[in-house]
Amino acid sequence: MEVSAERVLLEVFLMFAAAKLAGEVFERIRQPPVIGELLVGIALGPPALGLIGHTQVHEVLQELGAIVLLFMVGLDTGLASIRRVGGRALAVGTGGIILPFLTGLGFIYIIDGSLDEAMFVGAAMVATSVGITARVLSDLGVVEAIESRIILAAAVVDDILGLLVLAAVSGLTRGELSIIGLTALAVTATAFVALVALFGQRLVRIAVPHVDGARIPRGPLVFALTACLGLSALAGAIGLAAIIGAFLAGMAFSDLPRSWKLEEQVDPVYQLLVPFFFVVTGSLVDLGALAEPSSLGMVAGITGLAVAGKVIGCGGAAWGMGRRSATIVAVGMVPRGEVGIIVATVGLSREIITNELYGVIVAMSIITTLIAPPFLKALFPGRTAQERHERAARTEDVEGIGG
Amino acid sequence: MEVSAERVLLEVFLMFAAAKLAGEVFERIRQPPVIGELLVGIALGPPALGLIGHTQVHEVLQELGAIVLLFMVGLDTGLASIRRVGGRALAVGTGGIILPFLTGLGFIYIIDGSLDEAMFVGAAMVATSVGITARVLSDLGVVEAIESRIILAAAVVDDILGLLVLAAVSGLTRGELSIIGLTALAVTATAFVALVALFGQRLVRIAVPHVDGARIPRGPLVFALTACLGLSALAGAIGLAAIIGAFLAGMAFSDLPRSWKLEEQVDPVYQLLVPFFFVVTGSLVDLGALAEPSSLGMVAGITGLAVAGKVIGCGGAAWGMGRRSATIVAVGMVPRGEVGIIVATVGLSREIITNELYGVIVAMSIITTLIAPPFLKALFPGRTAQERHERAARTEDVEGIGG
Repeated sequence: MEVSAERVLLEVFLMFAAAKLAGEVFERIRQPPVIGELLVGIALGPPALGLIGHTQVHEVLQELGAIVLLFMVGLDTGLASIRRVGGRALAVGTGGIILPFLTGLGFIYIIDGSLDEAMFVGAAMVATSVGITARVLSDLGVVEAIESRIILAAAVVDDILGLLVLAAVSGLTRGELSIIGLTALAVTATAFVALVALFGQRLVRIAVPHVDGARIPRGPLVFALTACLGLSALAGAIGLAAIIGAFLAGMAFSDLPRSWKLEEQVDPVYQLLVPFFFVVTGSLVDLGALAEPSSLGMVAGITGLAVAGKVIGCGGAAWGMGRRSATIVAVGMVPRGEVGIIVATVGLSREIITNELYGVIVAMSIITTLIAPPFLKALFPGRTAQERHERAARTEDVEGIGG
Repeated sequence: MEVSAERVLLEVFLMFAAAKLAGEVFERIRQPPVIGELLVGIALGPPALGLIGHTQVHEVLQELGAIVLLFMVGLDTGLASIRRVGGRALAVGTGGIILPFLTGLGFIYIIDGSLDEAMFVGAAMVATSVGITARVLSDLGVVEAIESRIILAAAVVDDILGLLVLAAVSGLTRGELSIIGLTALAVTATAFVALVALFGQRLVRIAVPHVDGARIPRGPLVFALTACLGLSALAGAIGLAAIIGAFLAGMAFSDLPRSWKLEEQVDPVYQLLVPFFFVVTGSLVDLGALAEPSSLGMVAGITGLAVAGKVIGCGGAAWGMGRRSATIVAVGMVPRGEVGIIVATVGLSREIITNELYGVIVAMSIITTLIAPPFLKALFPGRTAQERHERAARTEDVEGIGG
């Protein structure tokens, strides 16, 4: 679908201006601005006012926004603090995969008896979309809290496992499951993440003096953006979410000379591009379709299982952290965002799932995405800045002993 | 033409990384980095290596790059310094329209006898694309030189007149020239430019305290980007080049509290987006087609007239500034860039011009774009920084007396 260049520019302006205005309003009523940006998208999108369309330009702006968002989150988080929560994150990521897949599969299989369809719905319920959670954590200023770090690291685990589940399901429904192919995929994806995590920071450090000697303006920023786009593209080429590459790139740059002021330089790009992720994501929401009575029961069932699966699976794996922290981790893993929709689109285009089930999965993705931010906000600000500070200090000590 | 999201991301990475690498190489060999970026585009584009395609995503990245570029140039230039050269710029802009249009029209009419075709070619030869020149001036650090200010202001005049010529030609070839419509267009375009130039700065100043009180991060940057995108979209909607809106927006923000540090905040966005303008522009160049012997004579004729028309028309109008300054102004107005190609595309799609003539116009646009930067560079650095400083001081005095 192509529209005129003038029209596209008008939509870019409209999305940006409305998102920022909504962000300002939501800041003033003390709500996360990201909710305002999502609501703007819902209002402007094709199913509602139709002031913005959905072309590949919108998709690219959405993806670039998500990439810059996760790069910044990686930059804020740092690799060392993620490594320290590695074991727990592995458990949370894995725990959050099994239940949603099995319950989703079982629910659909019992209702309509098609195993292929049931497997695809299960696969669509698996992968967490960490963008929304990351932005809420960032808005709340708690990216460095231990719960945040576990969520972010678990999302990487979750994305690798989700990719494998989708590959397995795709193969099974084609009747050509290749164990070798699946193993190769698992090895490639894991190796990509492991190599970047292990050597990324070192390579960046080796490059620092060369970048400092560059003649082009803002060498450090250019170097960081190049690495971010490169690793995002590579992650996408492997089949992982591009934002996983961006997150890893951010972590690789998290331990740099203060003089580079990288965060301060990336921030203007963040302010420009990140709103597009949320506005375009919101623009896909069809509130009317959600309310259609025929699929209402199905939406309720699938969404309930999607929420319960993550809350029980992830919350259970994080239980040792105490009830409140486990709840934060569980809620943070609930949003399915665009990932569930992408899986559903594959299933629909291969005629494995029906149009109705596609709508149900889209509804589930949207509802899980919209319910998480208010809960996260309610769970976090109970702590004052002072408490957060003390807690962070304690956590460092405990981890220092354990690691 | 749609390609996969993974592919688009890969191309975005490739364009950015290659452009920055070429920029670095060209900085080291003391050439304008913009030439390196154009060459990267020529090498990667569909006619050559074909590593990047040409979709609406590429077009939007190209346009956003041009918008940020001209916004920054407007910010650097300032409204006051443009106002001071207003009379001369009006003469230069007008002078550069008449000769290219009449000679182009005459040349084609003599060769093939079709008045419609001849008028369209003439229209395609009219409008200067100021992006290339602006970038070269910016790279050389001479945006505030009097010649630069005249070029930039003349490009605004040129764009309004070019729009009117295209509208008149479009009407005439349809056999429905509406004097009322044409007058309305002239009034709208002129009113847009005049209103923004007259009141833009004042409106921005009124908004300053409100923006300073904003709760969202980087209020000033967000305000400036919103105005930039809004005025660009508005200029596009009127039929002017979007970059004219961006340039006017930049000027409206040029006189702001130092504490806003707007240039420093826009600069990271500039570093990210501007290369796409030049890489995508370069990617449209088909060097093979330029060398086809059948159209070689035609290309030489049209390009020669396009260069001579601007050099004589603009240089003549600027003659009173001295030979060197007049030459700089003349050369700066030569590039036709994407504007000539856009007019040719309209003519082709309405089947008024042939495929061969389309190729000739594209070739003319490309050649005029590529030849200007080395000449500009050669004309400027003859002055030392000291000379430039003294000259600028003298110019201020003279203008102070005259204005």
